[in-house]
Amino acid sequence: MENNEISLAVIKRLPRYFRYLEELLDSGVERISSGELSMRMGVTASQIRQDLNNFGGFGQQGYGYNVEYLHSEIAKILGIDKIHTMIIVGAGNLGRAIANYANFAKRGFVVKGMFDSNPELVGCECRGAKVMPMSEMVPFIMENNIEILALTIPKTSANEVAKTAVEAGIKGIWNFAHMDLVVPDNVVVENVHLSESLMTLSYNLSVK
Amino acid sequence: MENNEISLAVIKRLPRYFRYLEELLDSGVERISSGELSMRMGVTASQIRQDLNNFGGFGQQGYGYNVEYLHSEIAKILGIDKIHTMIIVGAGNLGRAIANYANFAKRGFVVKGMFDSNPELVGCECRGAKVMPMSEMVPFIMENNIEILALTIPKTSANEVAKTAVEAGIKGIWNFAHMDLVVPDNVVVENVHLSESLMTLSYNLSVK
Repeated sequence: MENNEISLAVIKRLPRYFRYLEELLDSGVERISSGELSMRMGVTASQIRQDLNNFGGFGQQGYGYNVEYLHSEIAKILGIDKIHTMIIVGAGNLGRAIANYANFAKRGFVVKGMFDSNPELVGCECRGAKVMPMSEMVPFIMENNIEILALTIPKTSANEVAKTAVEAGIKGIWNFAHMDLVVPDNVVVENVHLSESLMTLSYNLSVK
Repeated sequence: MENNEISLAVIKRLPRYFRYLEELLDSGVERISSGELSMRMGVTASQIRQDLNNFGGFGQQGYGYNVEYLHSEIAKILGIDKIHTMIIVGAGNLGRAIANYANFAKRGFVVKGMFDSNPELVGCECRGAKVMPMSEMVPFIMENNIEILALTIPKTSANEVAKTAVEAGIKGIWNFAHMDLVVPDNVVVENVHLSESLMTLSYNLSVK
């Protein structure tokens, strides 16, 4: 099976399947029918069957899905069966919130270091990741083979930091700055635009 | 014009238009052609014309768009021309990051108070919003007519807090807990599932 053949719509739903399967796994459920999963997730059973059929015959008539198997297959597809090294640039509240997220380490995302331009924050430690000055970012990325940059700084310096980090070897950027980054085509950017999310909430409130 | 008639796809793009228009406004640009806006935003000029035509003839042949007018019209559609009162439940790093976001107040979202079950955090202050004990949440929502609840607590207690807050009068929930909340149909929920965002990044890295 080629990952590239799965439609974007299905890919977007995979993290949610993964979350439900993880909950089932944590509560000791070994198998589940598409009907039961459908009830829990609030989507139709036929949607679930259709989505999961993309990854080959995981379900069995009269047995349902093997939770552990499906969980590990989706993990593979999402690329979270491997370790991903990450640094966080911006050691403010948001950067620290991300560093503290125990979940991320559980899913293979390991924060190796944090960086900040504020000398008062340098030297602090957060879940084993030390805050270093910005001048050490490039050698740190190169020496530790860092794959992902989480950008939790204001937009004024975001593009500059992204450019420098990409030149040092960063492959993916988790961008919290309120702007669209300009990066080479081979770099993956995932945006979390909190103020846009809040505007969507506001819109939905205003039409209710 | 009825807001409800605009397609969901257009609505989803509005916050991004708003962000670009705000940047233009901040840098003193009074008018812009769809061509120029297209270059900045990296979408086609025809897409822009089509999207913005949804809100009536804002653009004029040979003149382009009046930035201030378009900015304020989009603000109205998004419901951010009014004040929205908000409380934050969970005064950890993420809750504090949100309270500190100066942008949100600028767009009419005012954090009136924060709540936490941890007695050590109660009494702290963040941008003028005091951290109060959970027992005070319900009367606070009722007395201050709070509209939005930002939920930045672990999933274990998220549904319980959401239920109590909705009964007290909350209309919209900005949910950062890693779960799907169960709320009545008339309550708007906007999810920010950070770990799902990170899995999407991981997937895109794995197929590159």
